[in-house]
Amino acid sequence: MATVIDNIGLLVTNRPEMGEGALGLLRDVSVVIANGEVVSVDGVGQVADERIDAQGRCVLPGFVASHTHLVFAGDRAEEFSKRMAGQPYDGGGIQVTTTATRAASDDDLRALSKARLEEAHRAGTTTIEIKSGYGLNVKDEARSLRLAQEITSETTFLGAHLLPSEYAGRADDYIDLVCGDMLTAARPHARWIDAFCEVGAFDEGQCRQVLTAGREAGLGLRLHGNQLGHGPGVQLAVEMGCASVDHCTYLSDEDIEALAASDTVATFLPATDFSTRQPYPDARRVIDAGASVAIASNCNPGSSYTTSLSFCIALAVRDMHMTIEEAIQAVTLGGAAALRRDDVGYLAPGAKGHLVILDADSYHDLAYRPGVPLIAQTVT
Amino acid sequence: MATVIDNIGLLVTNRPEMGEGALGLLRDVSVVIANGEVVSVDGVGQVADERIDAQGRCVLPGFVASHTHLVFAGDRAEEFSKRMAGQPYDGGGIQVTTTATRAASDDDLRALSKARLEEAHRAGTTTIEIKSGYGLNVKDEARSLRLAQEITSETTFLGAHLLPSEYAGRADDYIDLVCGDMLTAARPHARWIDAFCEVGAFDEGQCRQVLTAGREAGLGLRLHGNQLGHGPGVQLAVEMGCASVDHCTYLSDEDIEALAASDTVATFLPATDFSTRQPYPDARRVIDAGASVAIASNCNPGSSYTTSLSFCIALAVRDMHMTIEEAIQAVTLGGAAALRRDDVGYLAPGAKGHLVILDADSYHDLAYRPGVPLIAQTVT
Repeated sequence: MATVIDNIGLLVTNRPEMGEGALGLLRDVSVVIANGEVVSVDGVGQVADERIDAQGRCVLPGFVASHTHLVFAGDRAEEFSKRMAGQPYDGGGIQVTTTATRAASDDDLRALSKARLEEAHRAGTTTIEIKSGYGLNVKDEARSLRLAQEITSETTFLGAHLLPSEYAGRADDYIDLVCGDMLTAARPHARWIDAFCEVGAFDEGQCRQVLTAGREAGLGLRLHGNQLGHGPGVQLAVEMGCASVDHCTYLSDEDIEALAASDTVATFLPATDFSTRQPYPDARRVIDAGASVAIASNCNPGSSYTTSLSFCIALAVRDMHMTIEEAIQAVTLGGAAALRRDDVGYLAPGAKGHLVILDADSYHDLAYRPGVPLIAQTVT
Repeated sequence: MATVIDNIGLLVTNRPEMGEGALGLLRDVSVVIANGEVVSVDGVGQVADERIDAQGRCVLPGFVASHTHLVFAGDRAEEFSKRMAGQPYDGGGIQVTTTATRAASDDDLRALSKARLEEAHRAGTTTIEIKSGYGLNVKDEARSLRLAQEITSETTFLGAHLLPSEYAGRADDYIDLVCGDMLTAARPHARWIDAFCEVGAFDEGQCRQVLTAGREAGLGLRLHGNQLGHGPGVQLAVEMGCASVDHCTYLSDEDIEALAASDTVATFLPATDFSTRQPYPDARRVIDAGASVAIASNCNPGSSYTTSLSFCIALAVRDMHMTIEEAIQAVTLGGAAALRRDDVGYLAPGAKGHLVILDADSYHDLAYRPGVPLIAQTVT
């Protein structure tokens, strides 16, 4: 089965050696995909079973959303309204979603997750990471991961998301459960393990215990850190060799130095800073220091109920002072690096045939035309 | 011809006397439209030629975009990129668009404008104001208005947008032209007259001259003011009885008092503040003082290339501290007030049958789910 995307006016390959500038731009080309993989980016006239006409528009690698929480029931519009009226965000609402998620049937959770996945796909996301973290008991964490695994291979066990109310005052007991029976039940359904290292969630020692147990169980490591204030998250993530440390809204000079000297990707979640009315991270300093960065949606019902990486790009350019090119790379190559994937995030022979056709001549429009739905077609 | 919108889970009527709260909310109703007008909002079982199933979702009045510049050729993505890299916005790029617009054929301009109108319509806009201002000579101002008039009745003559380069150093001569031959040529195609009162554009005296000439010619009055700094725009607009003064990013206490004591609507254009990296207006103070407010997209290629009023709502809630309900009203009733229209912006007998069906249970999602295309269907 071969597919040709014909009549591409501007192609972002993300391979500087293949084209112009950091994005490796090519003009007036076709992309040939066979058996799900890109076989060429100059295949004019290639025989194909399927031919898609890009109508001279811009084509990019599909977006890689390396941080989402898609499996949940209920919403928190009321909490959002109160927050916009001045109530600060402290993550406490996670318990509300946990209650709703535990109460939902498999079929309901499956349908809700699938609808969000499809929305993300229409918005250009072709690779998606999904975390548990709204089960917070052995049965429901395993169930959330099992359902997530039905729709993505990038599943992350986040039992250490928030202390469930039934463990109030017994955080260490809960962490023992996370590292014991819960991890055992989650393991068959997870590729990654994650923890929320923040005042009000879990402390450095608890997160280290979770990451250590996950590593021993063969899971890859990631961490939520430095979202609501300065803290030990970034340093811990670097120390443990996490693939990514996510949020990074508050970073010290030492945090930035540690990131720059490591392979840990700093993943920014600007839609979260938008929807919690937090300051935006200083991406400029992080990039200029030489650290790797990604941008993800963090789609979840509490702090960032969006699937739109286009929206995140616009925020990153306006409010995080990233160039448009850097923001595009952060949602493609950056997301791939944060998931340690070398088969997505770019378009060249060997990459998966995942791409988006914009309803625009240039990728610039993703920042220049905020709020406009510019994804004409997502190809996977 | 009668149309029934059935199975509406939540209806925003914008008529507090008809339902709950400021938005006049009704639940589980149908809207009946006959000959283009709403005849009832509780017409269950009504005979209809056409039946649209809202699937239990939320329905709102169509959005009223009371400030756009849709008729233009070319784009200014490069200027945008430079601005995001630190170059300040001063409005000077308007000349770039003027050159491209003058050079475009009628057919090209018509096609470009229509495509943007359709994009705005898909995004929920059912009433749209369109300004000239990229012609800046007698022929091209009249042409822009003639083309705008083909797609909306809300056309605005904005010859006083920027001094064209051929009049450099002769601003008063240009204003005489605007008030003379240009107004005569524009008049048959315009409902409104507008001017850009700002350092770098036109001063108070020049704008007063334009508004006075427009009033004498029978046009309604509007004004751009207080966008890039404090200035005389708001006071002039109130003094002249303008229907609206637009931007209002920089307001003094006296400006707010003047607005509150007048019928002039303060129209905010938050996507412009987003795309020019300006501060956002303090809408809270303006509303609390009792002034009328609107929000519009200001769709134009220089400072705000978006047609999405959903995006503007999200910004207004996050960055202008408006409640979600206030932001919804500002893009519906507010826009209608800014255009002195009493037939749009609400859904009750007598209103035009213009509405949007959201892909959501509640209007909250317009702020709670930023960047997600939530307009399932626009009905006109």
